[in-house]
Amino acid sequence: MGKVVAALSMSLDGFVADEHDGVGELFGWYMNGDVELPSADPRRVFRVTGASERYLRSGFGSSGALICGRRLFDRTDGWGGRHPAGCPVFVVSHSVPGGWPRDDSETSFFPDPIGALEAAQKVAGERTVSVSTPTLTQQYLDAGLLDEIAVSLVPVLLGTGTRLFRMPVVMPIRLGDPEVIEGRGVTHLTYRVLR
Amino acid sequence: MGKVVAALSMSLDGFVADEHDGVGELFGWYMNGDVELPSADPRRVFRVTGASERYLRSGFGSSGALICGRRLFDRTDGWGGRHPAGCPVFVVSHSVPGGWPRDDSETSFFPDPIGALEAAQKVAGERTVSVSTPTLTQQYLDAGLLDEIAVSLVPVLLGTGTRLFRMPVVMPIRLGDPEVIEGRGVTHLTYRVLR
Repeated sequence: MGKVVAALSMSLDGFVADEHDGVGELFGWYMNGDVELPSADPRRVFRVTGASERYLRSGFGSSGALICGRRLFDRTDGWGGRHPAGCPVFVVSHSVPGGWPRDDSETSFFPDPIGALEAAQKVAGERTVSVSTPTLTQQYLDAGLLDEIAVSLVPVLLGTGTRLFRMPVVMPIRLGDPEVIEGRGVTHLTYRVLR
Repeated sequence: MGKVVAALSMSLDGFVADEHDGVGELFGWYMNGDVELPSADPRRVFRVTGASERYLRSGFGSSGALICGRRLFDRTDGWGGRHPAGCPVFVVSHSVPGGWPRDDSETSFFPDPIGALEAAQKVAGERTVSVSTPTLTQQYLDAGLLDEIAVSLVPVLLGTGTRLFRMPVVMPIRLGDPEVIEGRGVTHLTYRVLR
């Protein structure tokens, strides 16, 4: 099976969204460079530095499935049915939102996180399953199911908002030294979770 | 005047000490390499990687004064009167601990953070004033007096303990892209505070 990788942008003080659920301060690096990077969503073209392009291409290229929570799904309106990474999306949600599932979108809904992960891994095969929601990141960490944490560390202090990491069930959780890609407005740090 | 730089080791989830005030998980990088780095305290010899040696030498070499809080001072027993960086120490504390000040130690005590910083800057001249306590880091950040934040980011999730960053008075606080030095068991990230 492929790896399970949590990939999120985080402020230096640990937040993935501000107190109003905004990500403007964290996602600037997607649009602050000269390299056009088309995504699977035709409405969405990133303009990144060469460094961030390498990071994103590698991530998009290896993604076989993406898991997110309902909050992120709603906030992005389900990425219009097509996630920029171009892979099937598995949403953990107690209910299926109105209008979904859609025939034109590989988006499915699961009530529990483990069921979603199993389904995502089945579809992804040898490719990576990406996790893009903090609560699921923590749940898979706690369950020993997360292989890597890819933090795009943004040079800003938000002070409050939604944290990436919560208190784990077993502490501490040790990680390997990160693979580092230095972007502009972001430092991409990919850590292996040590068992 | 020299720069004011907060320099601390922090877990990826934002803690500078665990729930028991322990720093074992965070300070391993001081002793996990082959390069002997004597400090100003003759009892303390670091054994670091070449990368961390470059980071530490640069920090120790430029330090003209160090500011800390009473908690850190007590925990280290005042570094035996001689901080590894070899510079005068300014402790922010409501009271002067018994046995201090000592004739054989350049350690002085100040009831308020701003007074301590002014005294430290006077002694440091063109050299750096290092801040090594999270509460003071936040206070100087809030007062617009901090020039850089040097985070030695350690690949571990502690889950709970003492956080480096609290809620700032004005949010967000933007930083420049960091200078990155990749060590073993640590990634040294030095950020400029943007005004």
